[in-house]
Amino acid sequence: MTPFKLTDELISQIETLIEKKSEGQLRDLLMELHYADIAEIVNELDLEEATYLFKLLDSEKTSDTLTELDDDVREQILQNLSAKEIAEEIEELDTDDAADIIAELPEERQEKVIQQIEDEEHAAEIVELMRYDEDTAGGLMAKELVSVNENWNVLKCVKEMRVQAENVTRVHSIYVVDDQGKLKGRLSLKDLLTTSTTAQIRDVYIPKVDSVSVHDKGEEVARIMSKYDLEAIPVVDEMHRLVGRITIDDIVDVIKEEAEKDYQLAAGITKDVEADDSILELTRARLPWLFLGLMGGVGAALIMGGFEEILEKHAIIFFFTPLIAAMAGNVGVQSAAIIVQGLANDDIKGSISNRLIKEMSLAMLNGIILAVVLLVVTWVWKSNFDSALAISVSLFIVIIVAGIIGTFIPLFLNRRGIDPAIATGPFITTSNDIFGILIYFWIAKLILNI
Amino acid sequence: MTPFKLTDELISQIETLIEKKSEGQLRDLLMELHYADIAEIVNELDLEEATYLFKLLDSEKTSDTLTELDDDVREQILQNLSAKEIAEEIEELDTDDAADIIAELPEERQEKVIQQIEDEEHAAEIVELMRYDEDTAGGLMAKELVSVNENWNVLKCVKEMRVQAENVTRVHSIYVVDDQGKLKGRLSLKDLLTTSTTAQIRDVYIPKVDSVSVHDKGEEVARIMSKYDLEAIPVVDEMHRLVGRITIDDIVDVIKEEAEKDYQLAAGITKDVEADDSILELTRARLPWLFLGLMGGVGAALIMGGFEEILEKHAIIFFFTPLIAAMAGNVGVQSAAIIVQGLANDDIKGSISNRLIKEMSLAMLNGIILAVVLLVVTWVWKSNFDSALAISVSLFIVIIVAGIIGTFIPLFLNRRGIDPAIATGPFITTSNDIFGILIYFWIAKLILNI
Repeated sequence: MTPFKLTDELISQIETLIEKKSEGQLRDLLMELHYADIAEIVNELDLEEATYLFKLLDSEKTSDTLTELDDDVREQILQNLSAKEIAEEIEELDTDDAADIIAELPEERQEKVIQQIEDEEHAAEIVELMRYDEDTAGGLMAKELVSVNENWNVLKCVKEMRVQAENVTRVHSIYVVDDQGKLKGRLSLKDLLTTSTTAQIRDVYIPKVDSVSVHDKGEEVARIMSKYDLEAIPVVDEMHRLVGRITIDDIVDVIKEEAEKDYQLAAGITKDVEADDSILELTRARLPWLFLGLMGGVGAALIMGGFEEILEKHAIIFFFTPLIAAMAGNVGVQSAAIIVQGLANDDIKGSISNRLIKEMSLAMLNGIILAVVLLVVTWVWKSNFDSALAISVSLFIVIIVAGIIGTFIPLFLNRRGIDPAIATGPFITTSNDIFGILIYFWIAKLILNI
Repeated sequence: MTPFKLTDELISQIETLIEKKSEGQLRDLLMELHYADIAEIVNELDLEEATYLFKLLDSEKTSDTLTELDDDVREQILQNLSAKEIAEEIEELDTDDAADIIAELPEERQEKVIQQIEDEEHAAEIVELMRYDEDTAGGLMAKELVSVNENWNVLKCVKEMRVQAENVTRVHSIYVVDDQGKLKGRLSLKDLLTTSTTAQIRDVYIPKVDSVSVHDKGEEVARIMSKYDLEAIPVVDEMHRLVGRITIDDIVDVIKEEAEKDYQLAAGITKDVEADDSILELTRARLPWLFLGLMGGVGAALIMGGFEEILEKHAIIFFFTPLIAAMAGNVGVQSAAIIVQGLANDDIKGSISNRLIKEMSLAMLNGIILAVVLLVVTWVWKSNFDSALAISVSLFIVIIVAGIIGTFIPLFLNRRGIDPAIATGPFITTSNDIFGILIYFWIAKLILNI
C-alpha cells in the first residue's frame, strides 16, 4: 500500500470537484481514504467547501474525521451544521470522542444536540462522561467495553460478549465484575478460546488487574499505562465499580500533548499554538513571555546604572555582562530542565537538599573549568589581571547560584502543586539574568576595591 | 488494587532480607510484584545485591525486569552473569527485547551468549533482528506475530493460530500472507469468531492493511501509528514479505524518547542523561553547550570593546546590552521551537519564504509593542530622547532579525537532513546574542551620530 501524501494537486483536484458538485466522484475518491487523511484535506479547505463535504459524506466517515480536525476548523464546521446533523455524527462516535466534541459546543447548543441523539443509552453515557474534568481518567475514558459477570459460565460469557463487542472497536480484555458491578478481574480473549464452555467465570478469571480511579490525573494514567505496557486500563469509581475504559491511543495523545506543552513552556510560548495559527494567536502566546524578558532587561539596566562608578577605570567589566547573563540563563535552564524531566518521569527521589548539594557540586565543576578558560582569555586580551580575575570569579559564583536557582524553583513549584515546567524558559532566564548581573557587579566592585 | 509505591522502607526491607539470605521470603515478596516495579527496586540496590536477586529469581520474571532497568545498572548486572545465565534470560524474552539486550553486550560476549541459546529458531530470529539499525522499523520490530496463509480455511487457520499464539503475548491482528510470504491483508479475531469454519481465508480477509518497511525510521513509524490510532503494525521487507510486527508500547517509548531528546537539546543538554546520573556524566552532557555560550559571550565582549567610543557620552547604551541579548535569544528560541514542533508533527506546509514572511510580520508586531514600551521607560529614566530612541529602534530590528534566524536555521537544517532540534537552545541564543549586540551597536552609533 502506498502511504497517503497530502499534496497541493490533491487539494486542488478536490476543490475542483466540489466546485463542479461532482458528488459521485468525490464520494469515490474520499471513501477510499482513512478518516485521518480526510481530516488533513479538510483542514486545508475553506469553510464552505469543508461544510459541503461534511453534508455530502456518510456520518460513519465524517464523524471520525471530525475528531481528527484542527480545533478551530472543527468549531467552524460545527457552527455550520444543525443540531440534528451534529447528533447524527455523534451517534457514530465512541462515547469519549462524542463527549469531547459536545463539550466544545456553546452551552445552549449542547442541550439541543443531546436531545437529538436517538439512542437514549448512548446519550446518557455521553452526559455522564461530560461531568468529568477533561484532564482526569473520567474525562479520558470511554463507556465502550466488554464486561462479564463472575457468576456466568464461559458459554453465556461468549454469547454476551459477542453482543457487547458489536459496539467496541477493539477488545483488549474482558473485564469481570460482581453483581454490584465492582471490578473483580479480567479474562483474555485467548483464555476464553481455550477454556471449556461450562467452566464458571469465577473459577477462570485473573484476579489481578490494574485499574485507575475516575479522578486520577491523565498524566498519572499515562505513567501507569506506559510503565506497565498496558494497551487498555479499566476505570473504577469511588465504590470500585467499573465505569469505563481508557485505551492506549488516547494516552499517546496525552503523552504527546504533555511533551509539547513542556517544550513550548521551555521555549517561552504559552501552550497550544501551532506554526499554522494566525499571527494574532501566535502573538498572544509569545508576547507575555517577551514582556517578562523586557522587564528583566530593564531591571538589569537599572542595576548596571547603579554601578556606573566602575565604568571609568574598568569599562571591560561592562563588556562581559551579556556573557554573565547568558551563562546564568543557560545553567539555570539546564538544571531546571533535568529536574522537570525527572519529575515528569517520577525519577526524582530523595530530599531537596541532597538535590541542591549535587547541583552545587556539578555547577562548581562546570564553573571552575569555564572560569579558568575565561580568566586566560580576558587576561590575554586586556592584560589586566585584576579585572580578568574579577570577571572569572564572578562567573564561577554566578554559575553556582544559577544552578541552585534552576534546581530549587521547579522542585519548589512541584511541592506547591504548580506545574514545574513553567520554571523553565524565560522565567528562569530572566530571574537568573538579574541575579547574575547583580552578583557580578558586587563581586567586581569588591575585588577591584572601588 | 493499591498501586505500587517505591519507598525507602521497602528498599531497606529487601536489603535486610538479602543480607540474611532469606530466599523464601524474598521470592514470596518479589513474585507478587510486576517486573517494572522490581526493576525500580533493583535500580536502587547495589550491584552485589542486585546480582544476588537475579540469580535467585526465575528468569521468567528477571528477563522482563532486565528490559526495564536503567542502562548502566543493566550493563553492570550482565557483566556479573555468565553467558549461560544471560542466554536463559534471553530465552524468556520476545525477540525484539532479546536483540536489544544482546546488542548492548561487548562483541565477544554477544557470540557466546547466542551460542548458549537452546532454541535455535529463537536465536536465528534474534540474529536477524540485530542486523537492523536500532532507529528503524527493523530495529523496533519483534518476530512474534500470528500469520496465516490466504489458501487455508478458517478451521485450519484457528488451529495454526492457537499454536502461534502461544508465543505471542498479545494478538492484535492476524496477518494474511500468500505462498511467498508476502503480506496480503489482515483478519481480526472478532471476524474469525463469527465466520463459518469452512470459509476460505482468501474470501474473508481484509485486503487493506497499513504496513511499514524495515528501513523506515522509528519516528515515521510513530507518526503513522499515532495518526491512524494503530496498536500494532506489520513490517515488510524490500520484497513486501512479512518479517515482523511493531506494537504500540514500543512506539510509546519512541515518542517519549524523541520528546525528551528535543526538550534536552532545547535546554542545552546533550541527549540521554537523567537527574540521577553521575556528576561526571552530567558535566559531559552540559559543559559543551556552556562552552559555546562562553565563546558567544567573549565574542559579544569583543564587539562591545570595538564600540568603546560610545561609552563616554552614552554609557546607557551599554546598560541595555543584556536586554538586547536576552530578547534576541528569547525571540529566536520561540520561533525555532514553533518550527521544530511543526516539523515533528509534519505540520509545516508551504515554502520557506512564506514562513519567513509570516515570522517577520509576527516579529514586527511583537517588536513594535515592546519597542514603544522600552522607549517610554528609558526616556523617563534618563530623559535623553536620542539614546532612548536608539535603544528602542535597535530592539525592534533585533527582534525581527532574531525571528528570521530562529525560523530559518531549523528549516535549513531540516532540508539538509540534520535534526532541526539542535537549532533550539544554546545554538540559537548564542548566535542571536552576537548578531543582536552587533546590530544594536551599529544602529546606536548611526542614530547617535558617533
